[in-house]
Amino acid sequence: MNSNIEIEPLTADAFAPFGDLIDTAGEPTKLINNGLCERYNDRIRLDFDKRGRAGVSVLYGQPYALPYTFDLVERHPLGSQAFIPMIDAPFLVIVAHDENGVPGTPQAFLTASFQGVNIYRNTWHGILTPLEKPTPFAVVDWIGEDPNLEEYRFNSPWRVSNKT
Amino acid sequence: MNSNIEIEPLTADAFAPFGDLIDTAGEPTKLINNGLCERYNDRIRLDFDKRGRAGVSVLYGQPYALPYTFDLVERHPLGSQAFIPMIDAPFLVIVAHDENGVPGTPQAFLTASFQGVNIYRNTWHGILTPLEKPTPFAVVDWIGEDPNLEEYRFNSPWRVSNKT
Repeated sequence: MNSNIEIEPLTADAFAPFGDLIDTAGEPTKLINNGLCERYNDRIRLDFDKRGRAGVSVLYGQPYALPYTFDLVERHPLGSQAFIPMIDAPFLVIVAHDENGVPGTPQAFLTASFQGVNIYRNTWHGILTPLEKPTPFAVVDWIGEDPNLEEYRFNSPWRVSNKT
Repeated sequence: MNSNIEIEPLTADAFAPFGDLIDTAGEPTKLINNGLCERYNDRIRLDFDKRGRAGVSVLYGQPYALPYTFDLVERHPLGSQAFIPMIDAPFLVIVAHDENGVPGTPQAFLTASFQGVNIYRNTWHGILTPLEKPTPFAVVDWIGEDPNLEEYRFNSPWRVSNKT
């Protein structure tokens, strides 16, 4: 059994090496609709290989319980992948730095209300892991025919749990 | 005062002339994550002028009450615009056919749970109108410098209300 991974809150700074947050942090870029709507403009770095194109799909994922044990991570060489929850329910975001072509020690973040994430192209991450209830996500990712999935299975599983 | 507009449920067929739904209708394209996640693939028609690019922004909109009165619609000549609610709360989607460069009689649709919409490029639509509570939306639309907003103000307002 590998070490335990303690869940961290999801902040833009901590997540910066892996991707962007989709949220309303900071000042709005502008107010529209007579001041009744705030626009936070152009929040994420979309990055798609020219062999395909961007698309919007929907994922409907069953929830997982904590502590959560996993040994599989994946990455997508041909494009970034944005996950936008369509209900107000937290989800785990597991990511890892690349170390010479394989993932290093993973980190686990818990989203707050009204937070989605964009995971950068070719960044190691866990599978989609809602925690509380079945959750629909809109996903902006690469659509095309070329292989776009690399998986890595750790020799022993990681255990993700709340900070004690 | 113009006629009343009765709110219709949002269905793919009724909305087809104006755009796409972002939802989990129909059979999933495939199951992933050992069967624990359904993927509904590539649900909308993204359409962006080459002078700019797609971006993901966040809108945070205050709610409106019914009956809702409006006289302004708008359209975006340079790109489609997808609205993905980040909480489970209904919103009104007001759209109108184009009739020789001006909008015809508007229609008003109410979303169900887990529904977003993609409004096609250059399609007349109302402003963002959540109904129950302040609502964050992820938005996929055109980012660029060229003018991308055409507004039209009706001579007299429309009144949107539930079917009686």
